[in-house]
Amino acid sequence: MKGLEILPVGGIPEVHPGDDPASLIARAAGENFLMTGDVVVVTHKVVSKAEGRLVDLATVEPSTLAKGFAARHDKDPRQIEVVLRESKRIVRMDRGIIISETHHGFVCANAGVDASNVPGDETVCLLPLDPDASARRLRDTLASKVGGDLAVVISDSFGRAWRYGITNVAIGVAGMEPLADYRGERDEHGYPLTASVLAVADELAAAAELVMGKTMGIPVAVVRNYPYEKGPGTGRDLLMEPGRDLFR
Amino acid sequence: MKGLEILPVGGIPEVHPGDDPASLIARAAGENFLMTGDVVVVTHKVVSKAEGRLVDLATVEPSTLAKGFAARHDKDPRQIEVVLRESKRIVRMDRGIIISETHHGFVCANAGVDASNVPGDETVCLLPLDPDASARRLRDTLASKVGGDLAVVISDSFGRAWRYGITNVAIGVAGMEPLADYRGERDEHGYPLTASVLAVADELAAAAELVMGKTMGIPVAVVRNYPYEKGPGTGRDLLMEPGRDLFR
Repeated sequence: MKGLEILPVGGIPEVHPGDDPASLIARAAGENFLMTGDVVVVTHKVVSKAEGRLVDLATVEPSTLAKGFAARHDKDPRQIEVVLRESKRIVRMDRGIIISETHHGFVCANAGVDASNVPGDETVCLLPLDPDASARRLRDTLASKVGGDLAVVISDSFGRAWRYGITNVAIGVAGMEPLADYRGERDEHGYPLTASVLAVADELAAAAELVMGKTMGIPVAVVRNYPYEKGPGTGRDLLMEPGRDLFR
Repeated sequence: MKGLEILPVGGIPEVHPGDDPASLIARAAGENFLMTGDVVVVTHKVVSKAEGRLVDLATVEPSTLAKGFAARHDKDPRQIEVVLRESKRIVRMDRGIIISETHHGFVCANAGVDASNVPGDETVCLLPLDPDASARRLRDTLASKVGGDLAVVISDSFGRAWRYGITNVAIGVAGMEPLADYRGERDEHGYPLTASVLAVADELAAAAELVMGKTMGIPVAVVRNYPYEKGPGTGRDLLMEPGRDLFR
């Protein structure tokens, strides 16, 4: 197997509502840069901003719950209110952090609502409404520019149970299967692999983060030479069915 | 920033107790292949086997607990017994799977005890006794061969809460800080980054897995051009303090 390359795509300007993220990425990457077979990993903020998923906190009236929690933890009650609105279910509220399940089904801190890498002190950025649809739109445009197949992963950095530190994961996927299922195959010694479903889209997002950082202004990276499995997989395939989740 | 390369190292022979994993890796990689600044990601089985962390199930007398659970779920009671012995605390036992905290503090399925990629039907492989020490030994030998600094990550694939599919994570680290702490820094808009401690060693392990697969016989990968932070960090830095973990 050949090695992979993880290539940063810098030079993407600040994204505004209505912008076409595929054009911005293609222009920043440079003509003829993207290739058939690439996996393009895009930080969700690029698509969220283009899709207008921004909230001006001056327009938000906080609820009593939001006001009380914010007062106890020295937070902005309007931002807490936005987190509550983006949540389907609260997993935990403590130390000023809300771990919740978003309307998409992702379990993450503050429902993905974030003020970093957003212009203005009073604006927060939400997750895309439908990250798989965002990924599909990006993929369709980028694939037609390239004249071949490629895959797109929309990413965000999530905390996790049991382990310290956040890692980049896939929240939207297009053009590839996000899981590599080895069940039924055998290892080199002939032993059947029973518990081997790998979340490769999450691993691709994690690999891409290594060239992105948080302060480097690199919201997009290309993973080249990864032999992804083409298919109609989505980011929802990466959600664990609650009844089967033994790690909670 | 330059792009990264993720380079598979194949051709490592079956490892036996007493083998020197650094020599096996250096030989398989080829002379002059490893370079100063590389992060060498090594599947734990390479070091576990070299360190003799193998158990012949014929030597194991299962406890009543192991026998009962194995009978209910059609498992080998001797393998269940090994899992219990490798555990400090059981998180969940269901559907034939034991999620436990290992003596090191890792929370994973079956305490990392695994029969895949191990020769013989009656042998299981354990996690290294001290994966950080294994990483340090590998690093010292490989660094002296290279004549410069490099980092080593010992990896295993773990399931996680909330998300489907396993991903490769770091269980032992040498020569680098496993966390990149952006707290106190500011984004491009001057906003302070408050929740940004990235588990880069886990992301490096995940990136490496993309060239390893489960059936390809590639237990080692090199991440080249990643500007890791040198330091005395360990795999234990990636364990979440229970009282601060809001994701459980």
